[in-house]
Amino acid sequence: MIVILNSHPSQERVHELVNQLTNLGLSTHLSEGQEATIIGLIGDTSRVDMDAIRANDIVKDVMRVTEPYKAVNRKFHPDDSIFPIAGRQVGEGFFQVIAGPCSVESEEQIISVAQDVKKSGASFLRGGAFKPRTSPYAFQGLKAEGLELLLEAKRATGLPIVTELMNINHLEAFRDVDVIQVGARNMQNFEMLRELGHCDKPILLKRGLANTLEEFLMSAEYIVSGGNERVILCERGIRTFETMTRNTLDIAAIPLIKRISHLPVIVDPSHATGLPFLVEPLAKAAIAAGADGLMVEVHNNPKAALCDGAQSITPAQFDHLMGEVTRRTSFEGKRLGCEAE
Amino acid sequence: MIVILNSHPSQERVHELVNQLTNLGLSTHLSEGQEATIIGLIGDTSRVDMDAIRANDIVKDVMRVTEPYKAVNRKFHPDDSIFPIAGRQVGEGFFQVIAGPCSVESEEQIISVAQDVKKSGASFLRGGAFKPRTSPYAFQGLKAEGLELLLEAKRATGLPIVTELMNINHLEAFRDVDVIQVGARNMQNFEMLRELGHCDKPILLKRGLANTLEEFLMSAEYIVSGGNERVILCERGIRTFETMTRNTLDIAAIPLIKRISHLPVIVDPSHATGLPFLVEPLAKAAIAAGADGLMVEVHNNPKAALCDGAQSITPAQFDHLMGEVTRRTSFEGKRLGCEAE
Amino acid sequence: MIVILNSHPSQERVHELVNQLTNLGLSTHLSEGQEATIIGLIGDTSRVDMDAIRANDIVKDVMRVTEPYKAVNRKFHPDDSIFPIAGRQVGEGFFQVIAGPCSVESEEQIISVAQDVKKSGASFLRGGAFKPRTSPYAFQGLKAEGLELLLEAKRATGLPIVTELMNINHLEAFRDVDVIQVGARNMQNFEMLRELGHCDKPILLKRGLANTLEEFLMSAEYIVSGGNERVILCERGIRTFETMTRNTLDIAAIPLIKRISHLPVIVDPSHATGLPFLVEPLAKAAIAAGADGLMVEVHNNPKAALCDGAQSITPAQFDHLMGEVTRRTSFEGKRLGCEAE
Amino acid sequence: MIVILNSHPSQERVHELVNQLTNLGLSTHLSEGQEATIIGLIGDTSRVDMDAIRANDIVKDVMRVTEPYKAVNRKFHPDDSIFPIAGRQVGEGFFQVIAGPCSVESEEQIISVAQDVKKSGASFLRGGAFKPRTSPYAFQGLKAEGLELLLEAKRATGLPIVTELMNINHLEAFRDVDVIQVGARNMQNFEMLRELGHCDKPILLKRGLANTLEEFLMSAEYIVSGGNERVILCERGIRTFETMTRNTLDIAAIPLIKRISHLPVIVDPSHATGLPFLVEPLAKAAIAAGADGLMVEVHNNPKAALCDGAQSITPAQFDHLMGEVTRRTSFEGKRLGCEAE
Repeated sequence: MIVILNSHPSQERVHELVNQLTNLGLSTHLSEGQEATIIGLIGDTSRVDMDAIRANDIVKDVMRVTEPYKAVNRKFHPDDSIFPIAGRQVGEGFFQVIAGPCSVESEEQIISVAQDVKKSGASFLRGGAFKPRTSPYAFQGLKAEGLELLLEAKRATGLPIVTELMNINHLEAFRDVDVIQVGARNMQNFEMLRELGHCDKPILLKRGLANTLEEFLMSAEYIVSGGNERVILCERGIRTFETMTRNTLDIAAIPLIKRISHLPVIVDPSHATGLPFLVEPLAKAAIAAGADGLMVEVHNNPKAALCDGAQSITPAQFDHLMGEVTRRTSFEGKRLGCEAE
Repeated sequence: MIVILNSHPSQERVHELVNQLTNLGLSTHLSEGQEATIIGLIGDTSRVDMDAIRANDIVKDVMRVTEPYKAVNRKFHPDDSIFPIAGRQVGEGFFQVIAGPCSVESEEQIISVAQDVKKSGASFLRGGAFKPRTSPYAFQGLKAEGLELLLEAKRATGLPIVTELMNINHLEAFRDVDVIQVGARNMQNFEMLRELGHCDKPILLKRGLANTLEEFLMSAEYIVSGGNERVILCERGIRTFETMTRNTLDIAAIPLIKRISHLPVIVDPSHATGLPFLVEPLAKAAIAAGADGLMVEVHNNPKAALCDGAQSITPAQFDHLMGEVTRRTSFEGKRLGCEAE
Repeated sequence: MIVILNSHPSQERVHELVNQLTNLGLSTHLSEGQEATIIGLIGDTSRVDMDAIRANDIVKDVMRVTEPYKAVNRKFHPDDSIFPIAGRQVGEGFFQVIAGPCSVESEEQIISVAQDVKKSGASFLRGGAFKPRTSPYAFQGLKAEGLELLLEAKRATGLPIVTELMNINHLEAFRDVDVIQVGARNMQNFEMLRELGHCDKPILLKRGLANTLEEFLMSAEYIVSGGNERVILCERGIRTFETMTRNTLDIAAIPLIKRISHLPVIVDPSHATGLPFLVEPLAKAAIAAGADGLMVEVHNNPKAALCDGAQSITPAQFDHLMGEVTRRTSFEGKRLGCEAE
Repeated sequence: MIVILNSHPSQERVHELVNQLTNLGLSTHLSEGQEATIIGLIGDTSRVDMDAIRANDIVKDVMRVTEPYKAVNRKFHPDDSIFPIAGRQVGEGFFQVIAGPCSVESEEQIISVAQDVKKSGASFLRGGAFKPRTSPYAFQGLKAEGLELLLEAKRATGLPIVTELMNINHLEAFRDVDVIQVGARNMQNFEMLRELGHCDKPILLKRGLANTLEEFLMSAEYIVSGGNERVILCERGIRTFETMTRNTLDIAAIPLIKRISHLPVIVDPSHATGLPFLVEPLAKAAIAAGADGLMVEVHNNPKAALCDGAQSITPAQFDHLMGEVTRRTSFEGKRLGCEAE
């Protein structure tokens, strides 16, 4: 970490600041230039609050030279994280497709969709039991009953299930869930992240609507530093000024995260824009950009869906999509839906 | 609600859609124009999922004519919400200043700041016990001990306290807190909002970093529709592309929310930019724009603060600010720090 | 166009508004519902100023049912626009790569880069002669001399050239340029767009840093409606809150524009993020998403470039990229660098 | 300027880089720390292209210690710029209100509005003759005729006029205009800015829709460094994700710019949101935040305006606004509409 001081600070104030920094357990290296005086900090700066240093009025700016994340940092973990979930390999070189309805609505619906997406080649079933809804009057999911129906669909099809946790107190009820999803709106629910760091389930962490990639990685750091190393990052579109699409898919996030972190990265092309005809082109782009998987909303009857129907594709469209996914993951040399040996 | 159809849909498909809408308990009014066919929906549309209707391929767009929020809507509650908290009147015509450090650090610190801000005219003491931090390695607050110290400062000064709740399971420990703050990162933690709708404490709800005003009001709707009518909205800056300031204060949010809702609106000029020299000019602007109060970070020694020191002002700067607040609220005809009769 | 009125407007005011609309040359269709009264407008609404109608205080909202663009609208021009430029076919089914340095620096530099990119398979040479620079002190390009050097490189290699026009008064000097580029900062320089509508050169129009896709198409409409039908749209990243990348590539813009317009769409993966290691993955994503070409910054010595060196790739990296482009355009069934018959 | 190198670069590469920097006419100061090696650059760094240095692969980051703007920088010009325009003092301590219609529509309209706003206390008349419109089909202004009508209104009322220049070739026709406005869409039309640096008219420069404050100041730098010191900066709202308002007024821009630059700053509360009922509260906030003036759209018949009617206020509303402006500028100790002695 580098602390840049204003020009010509008093020796006394510099001395004071150096003492303050030393008290944080850091060594300092002072360099006085003509335009600026610089203090280099040596030691574990991940705990240092840059803002606290900036509050010193002789300080012009503070800059990290090393990233604030460690457990998820590729520098300290050069190999890709590849881990099995319910027998499926997740990570670089593999490609998994998670598909299913926005929300579980009935036994018939979820089992029918599960059978359809399995047949087309999905490796995981997704479905919302507890739904985060902007409006308190909107359908909030079937909750415990929805979870039960998901498990039934799992028994019927063998597909492991992915579903969103909205309240850490529900964790016990999620014991048979295969992957716990943390939704975009909970990406910085730090209390939840910390708890999930101590659980033994893989976590699918969605990027917040307006969170930077550094914040995204720091949220993953909460989980991984707690001991839970099976975290999958999911890019799902960020909020911008564009209005034709609900969000803007940050496609560069895939290769960028894969360069600075070892964690798997998947893409949700459904939430990314909210427009079903864009699901397939964005899925293709995600594969080409290096994603390790997709999360797609599929509904047997989108126009009657109780939520987010507008962005779901039909089982027939999903089947077509999987044809493309098969061709393209093969082209990229990725193993689609691969089961662990 | 108005449903606009694509040009020349088949009669059969229109009939189908009308049936679907009628099944939601709504009356419909069909109008066939040359360019477009329109279906007007009459009834309680607050529960209608616009996306589900949009998923119908004969639908071009869906538009709300009435707002999706009711309990917080000025239309159904034309009078301003004015309510007492610990004897202080909050709402239109009054002006309350909440001040204190980003986080409680020690008994000496919090009591000293509390005495200082009280002497300068603050009506509430703020201080973080549980701190939401982007990094798992950053100081996370003194937690239960911090809460205890805040209560001690309350006993010492008589100032009611405002502090952030990060986990609904902590609610019991907040029983002596006067106002529960929901932080920006929890603005869409719907499980927490719903619970807070059933508690009897006033809630200070901060706008999320990238949430629209409609979403902000919908989050307040969660609380008020649950029965808790004492909600204070807090504009604290939104995330934009500008980099000189940490966030961009949406000053228009104040008069706009006050026009469409009856709830009190306050401003946090400290988080709004992260730059202490902007706190006073933004506070002045907030008063002129019609805000009902301010929330200001004050630290006895900003450069040694354990968090967010860079945006805190000193007690001396706060004292100067309160001189301005006194002159200006008087100019606006507002009663500063007014106690309920 | 649909005009939605506030509930229960006076008959007199409605009558007045209907007259005002009729005076614009439109037929009206009045529909009185319980919740809202709606006026449908029939006729050529592309000239109607929605804001002027919104200013009427009985109007709640105005909505377009038909798009405001016509000449670039696929509805009125269902076939893809495919046109030859200097013998190269541009548009759906073809794929053209434009490559070269950010700015022309010397005869040696531009000829060397031109030869390199030609050898690797580029079909057009790009190079800035007139450079838009944020700072008045930064290198502004070699101007007329740069243009001359570009033409020399064209003579030496046979590559048609693409270069940016910053001042409509320079048009005469651009007579031997093959494609005129309108930069992101001039996307809404309407005076320039109008003039370019009357010239006989193909235009490469870059999306503005914070312009919506509708605005982008409207700017193209200025050119095409003026009679110049050879417009290529270029997505080059938009401005968001993310700070790791200079801009955020809006990958969904490609399939979305191609659905609503017939114009060719290419991608600039260099400006999109400003990071050279992201050029290749973004180029791959662009191909998969359906782009009709790429525009890539290539510099023989990026670290000594006079501008934007940080985002340029080397000729060797470009050669590797072209290997990928060849494999992938073939996979997509596109004809790379195809010459018109 | 500070160049931060990657850890442990080879001595040879460092040597090479130091040579490259020395060749730019800068002295260097090398400091080798444990975590990072840093090169401090001494000399005139305003011409240095940071990106070119970043392109060097041993460079981790480059940071400015001094601002890239000089002519508009308060550091080199500590006193506020206060200058007369047509006898009115513009700058700190004074307050000028510019009012008038979005566009000039007829002799009767512009003279009537001019008389009204003058009576209410406006010091300048605004009105668009050449209008930047997103659509080529929208009303583009009366152009030369509109300019003539503005000059007639000036003769009739004595109000100096402010109007937008869209094409540098029109400059000659603007010889009797008092203040030339550069619109938001031309804020980075560098060719125009450079020309305006050589003209002897005051320039009202509007902030671009998505431009940072640094870019805004750099655009002003183009004009001032060319010799034209009479530049007025105008904050008019930036583009964000919020949809209830057309733009988001960046109120912090006022005190922030006034701290780092000596130029006058005014606010356009009309374009800032597009909603007429917000003009007055935002005008009040702007005054309280330290603005040196306002630019307000006033139309005698907003609902019949040919453009932007929706955001205009009526003469009666403007008269009420001016009552507030008078009270409030007096409260702030500013001289309203003050004529130069």
